[in-house]
Amino acid sequence: MSENIIAGRNSVAEALRSGRPVSKLLVQDGAKGGSLGEILASAREKNIALEYVKAEKLNKLVPGIRHQGIAALVAPIAFQTLDDVFAKAAEAGEDPFILLLDELQDPQNVGALIRTADAAGVHGVLLPKRRSCPLNTVVAKISAGAVEYVPVVQIGNIAQTIEELQQRGCWVVGADMDGEAYYDVNFAGPLVLVIGAEGKGLGRLVKQKCDTIASIPMQGGVASLNASAAGAVLMYEAVRQRHKAGR
Amino acid sequence: MSENIIAGRNSVAEALRSGRPVSKLLVQDGAKGGSLGEILASAREKNIALEYVKAEKLNKLVPGIRHQGIAALVAPIAFQTLDDVFAKAAEAGEDPFILLLDELQDPQNVGALIRTADAAGVHGVLLPKRRSCPLNTVVAKISAGAVEYVPVVQIGNIAQTIEELQQRGCWVVGADMDGEAYYDVNFAGPLVLVIGAEGKGLGRLVKQKCDTIASIPMQGGVASLNASAAGAVLMYEAVRQRHKAGR
Repeated sequence: MSENIIAGRNSVAEALRSGRPVSKLLVQDGAKGGSLGEILASAREKNIALEYVKAEKLNKLVPGIRHQGIAALVAPIAFQTLDDVFAKAAEAGEDPFILLLDELQDPQNVGALIRTADAAGVHGVLLPKRRSCPLNTVVAKISAGAVEYVPVVQIGNIAQTIEELQQRGCWVVGADMDGEAYYDVNFAGPLVLVIGAEGKGLGRLVKQKCDTIASIPMQGGVASLNASAAGAVLMYEAVRQRHKAGR
Repeated sequence: MSENIIAGRNSVAEALRSGRPVSKLLVQDGAKGGSLGEILASAREKNIALEYVKAEKLNKLVPGIRHQGIAALVAPIAFQTLDDVFAKAAEAGEDPFILLLDELQDPQNVGALIRTADAAGVHGVLLPKRRSCPLNTVVAKISAGAVEYVPVVQIGNIAQTIEELQQRGCWVVGADMDGEAYYDVNFAGPLVLVIGAEGKGLGRLVKQKCDTIASIPMQGGVASLNASAAGAVLMYEAVRQRHKAGR
């Protein structure tokens, strides 16, 4: 069940800090330095079991991941509902700010987008159940632990979800190539930002359902931005506009 | 000399398109589909030698890189000078827009930042010779070939370079935690944007030399953005402000 392992010092520290149920820490024999002492102290304080293992065991448990000598067995991500997301926004006294990822397959991008969503104050990240990359160890690690903080909602049909969000008063902005320059698009007010898969862009039907399409002007030799860079630019344009509108 | 190999279909296609000298293409036996036909046709048109090799050979040449059955042997990146960068801006009739990467070590971040710099119309990326990651195959691949388009300048002492840029009329904005909110910082006019290494931020002396520090407001549970996401937000804030100023 690699889905329930978190690896790397930042990610494990965030999991402990956020109060997510951790059943056990796996610590590499002889690992030390950096934030490791702090992590172990925090685990002891919470009465979390420690198991010392060889580096090879960690390497096998989370192949290809820089685990830095530490991993945690955690409860699976607790998916939330759309109602939870709207409740979170209401509690904060803010207009809902939602990120919808349209069939993103690359865990690096999904993790990076969740990290940026956390920083930008997004109230929920919506991931379609089908054709999205699973919320696995890579996503958690790349998100620097942000999957612990941002509510993640698994959704069924994307087009139907967009309709529901529109009925609940949200303005749905899709990111794609042939829209209006993003800085001329209104991102204030209740907002859903839809990011498509790299190389593919938004699905045809999804694009039709959006209220407007925002484009990031491309001035160089390469034809597109990475999905996580594009998402960062658009999420923070929303932060900027919402800040200005709130003045 | 893995520094002189480019791997992956996008990167190889960009190298061919940009006119960078390619001495040979290595093609995996039996590879086909996608853009491969186009790449091979373009190589034949340019009289570039093709060598068919086994997958294992490509795997060994560019370990850990998704080469997609194709690699190109290319001339090393031709580093440019600061004068080239200012000349490029002058030719375009634009205020200089320069990105300085302060000792970034992670090739993923450097590649992603160069890709975004290309898209944002940056005239040159400055990399210190010391303590930066080398411009290797990973950087080229992650940049999606943008290293072929954006002039890259190797610099010596960062603080001295900042002074020189200031003398040439540039406003130097460093990205760090305790500055002004970035949307209140002036990014119009001749601009140098300085991004620090992830986890470390800007060097102390570098920070002192900057004319101002721009911060990205963080609203979530994780304390920082990834360097490439932060760079994307700030480069595109410059694009936005320069566009508005040009109206």
